[in-house]
Amino acid sequence: MKLTEMNSAELNNFYETAKKDYDEILSRNLKLNMARGKPSAAQLDLALGVLEALHARYEFANSKGDDVRNYGIWDGLDSMKAIFSDMMEVPSSQVIIGNNSSLGIMFDVMSRGMTHGFSGQKPWARLEKKKWLCPCPGYDRHFGITEYFDFEMIPIPMLETGPDMDMVEELIKDESVKGIWCVPKYSNPTGLTYSDETVRRFARLHPAAKDFRIMWDNAYCIHDLTDTPETLLNLWDEAIEEGTEDNVFIFASTSKITFPGAGVAAMAASDRNIVDLKRHFTVETIGPDKLNQLRHVLFFHDINGVKEIMQEHRAILEPKFRKVCEVLEEEIGNLGLAEWNMPNGGYFINCNVMNGCAKRVFNLCRQAGVIITDAGATFPYGNDPQDSNIRIAPSFPPIEELEEAIRVFSTCVKFAAAEKLLNK
Amino acid sequence: MKLTEMNSAELNNFYETAKKDYDEILSRNLKLNMARGKPSAAQLDLALGVLEALHARYEFANSKGDDVRNYGIWDGLDSMKAIFSDMMEVPSSQVIIGNNSSLGIMFDVMSRGMTHGFSGQKPWARLEKKKWLCPCPGYDRHFGITEYFDFEMIPIPMLETGPDMDMVEELIKDESVKGIWCVPKYSNPTGLTYSDETVRRFARLHPAAKDFRIMWDNAYCIHDLTDTPETLLNLWDEAIEEGTEDNVFIFASTSKITFPGAGVAAMAASDRNIVDLKRHFTVETIGPDKLNQLRHVLFFHDINGVKEIMQEHRAILEPKFRKVCEVLEEEIGNLGLAEWNMPNGGYFINCNVMNGCAKRVFNLCRQAGVIITDAGATFPYGNDPQDSNIRIAPSFPPIEELEEAIRVFSTCVKFAAAEKLLNK
Repeated sequence: MKLTEMNSAELNNFYETAKKDYDEILSRNLKLNMARGKPSAAQLDLALGVLEALHARYEFANSKGDDVRNYGIWDGLDSMKAIFSDMMEVPSSQVIIGNNSSLGIMFDVMSRGMTHGFSGQKPWARLEKKKWLCPCPGYDRHFGITEYFDFEMIPIPMLETGPDMDMVEELIKDESVKGIWCVPKYSNPTGLTYSDETVRRFARLHPAAKDFRIMWDNAYCIHDLTDTPETLLNLWDEAIEEGTEDNVFIFASTSKITFPGAGVAAMAASDRNIVDLKRHFTVETIGPDKLNQLRHVLFFHDINGVKEIMQEHRAILEPKFRKVCEVLEEEIGNLGLAEWNMPNGGYFINCNVMNGCAKRVFNLCRQAGVIITDAGATFPYGNDPQDSNIRIAPSFPPIEELEEAIRVFSTCVKFAAAEKLLNK
Repeated sequence: MKLTEMNSAELNNFYETAKKDYDEILSRNLKLNMARGKPSAAQLDLALGVLEALHARYEFANSKGDDVRNYGIWDGLDSMKAIFSDMMEVPSSQVIIGNNSSLGIMFDVMSRGMTHGFSGQKPWARLEKKKWLCPCPGYDRHFGITEYFDFEMIPIPMLETGPDMDMVEELIKDESVKGIWCVPKYSNPTGLTYSDETVRRFARLHPAAKDFRIMWDNAYCIHDLTDTPETLLNLWDEAIEEGTEDNVFIFASTSKITFPGAGVAAMAASDRNIVDLKRHFTVETIGPDKLNQLRHVLFFHDINGVKEIMQEHRAILEPKFRKVCEVLEEEIGNLGLAEWNMPNGGYFINCNVMNGCAKRVFNLCRQAGVIITDAGATFPYGNDPQDSNIRIAPSFPPIEELEEAIRVFSTCVKFAAAEKLLNK
């Protein structure tokens, strides 16, 4: 029975039960964390071969005669580019390899925009007004970067097909709108993949601002979880077709393939953008860590090696995701007080609780020793206007802890909803 | 006999001999490179143990329970901080560990100044006028950063004691002067170490700009070459004494200890500066490559391990440096047309050729297939007003090639000087 269909007595009864359950949970002194999309230790063990891949006996001179232990090669090893080229579905010639963090490369790109601008336009730091489009719910660390650089962030609703493109197409007529954050595949946190038409509409954008950039964070490009993987239309190809490739920056990394702290990150850009970025990167550093690239190349061999380890990740992750959905269904499935989905990939289960309840659920969980992602974190400035969205990150805890955490979470959802309906 | 003491016939004779020698060199089709301060392959082999230090069998949870393979720990491992603390002679609490490039951290710090400022002052990107002090000859990549960020670079002459502190003390009365580049020990390229009094004067600076920063790039802090190593007074301690520690950013790396491309870099800063930087770094990335830090910690054990490998570097480098000085002495020692020194550490031999000859020497060398550092590179905007300074980087070539390169260089120095004196 749905909560909203209960009569007053039923609801009071429901509330008392939830409260009692919650009090019982409090007495357990739990300490569970499912706040971030961190791979579990078992997943990290899958990549231990990376550590053994590179030996002192290795021949360190590459085909161009460079000793890859030494300075130089600002854009990374060709062999690493080849693998990212396959992963990101862009030509090798457009790939720039960085260090361990794609977020770090994104920050750097935004920083370049701030101090030097793009396409010969005024540096963003010198503008009186600058805006950024933020599809939401979205990735809090993206919003953190645009907040840090003092952009006015405009929320764009996420539809089933991706960001509301009608709204995007309207807003880019404003020259002060400089870009948009996108996680186009298995989106963080909704788990959905942009439709072909959405990708085409991105490729067809002709923004008023010449320095408008689509930050296409393809973080989950090969991170399938089920037998029904989704396919993202290739933005790069579409943009080339439309002649809009200068609008596009594409990012990916091995953070959730090998090691989050010690993987390899990369970006792809048009020839004209690479000219801008090369100047930036070559002033910034004499080159990225190429030995870590080598380690990864020797471990993966090629894209098939990447796909193999992704199968092993899936074997660990899928049961956790299914467990979350199963427990949610069992605990709150028929109550009409939350919506969630089992995604086909990515790192999150997106859950919308009753409006006005997300913060309360977060706090109830915290008091019970269960840490979930901050309510509101998936919106710019941490402000979820409905106070409804909660990001569940099932990857890190062992499955038994995860199950316990989700049961606690479910109790908190019930408790918060009943409180709300009873105006307690 | 000095060239300037020769009569016309002697000089003509000298010129003809140099020209003949040079033509003979041209016929050899050489291809030698001593342009950059790159460690040689033999040096890189010293650190191969780093690659084997970290095994799949390792226990990856640190003392705080973090899995160091995963996200997090924005400022690096405590064990790595301890080693840098000893190297940089600052408390561990002030150390922030980055990725593979101290230049990258410096760029990041400057970038933070540009977009957000320091000590609550206006971001540098918003200033109409901003200036930076550049002791020279100095490090071209430092100057590259301040040029990129559009600072007006003011050359400060390097004296025997370090930068001309009278001039520095005068110039910092100007609020638009925002900082100074320093390589205080075995300075790039002069090889000299700042005197105790110079360091004290740095610590006693009270610049008009509250956001003035001393970029103390202690790149060669333990890079001794001889039995008479030099000691740099500890700027950090002096600054604490004077209450000026907010003026100071200190940098170091293992680039010339383990691998230039895959070492570990660090910086040190005051508590107040760390607040500013933490906000920047934690928005930028979820953490540096901690597995590479672990590799280094396991390889070094502690500062003594670092010192041991530095002895091995010295065993390879010292003979090269001595060979350069020996050949220069033999080839041009009594001609009064160049000055150079055997440094007690660092990576360069600084050579001042006859005024107005450096560019010509560079070009003659290049035509003969010997690449040296661009003449002028050691000055802001590549502009050496005397056209005299040349940086010799003996580390990279094998000693036989180095000897040949220095003989070619000597011939070019003779040829260029004779040309100049004869107004050819």
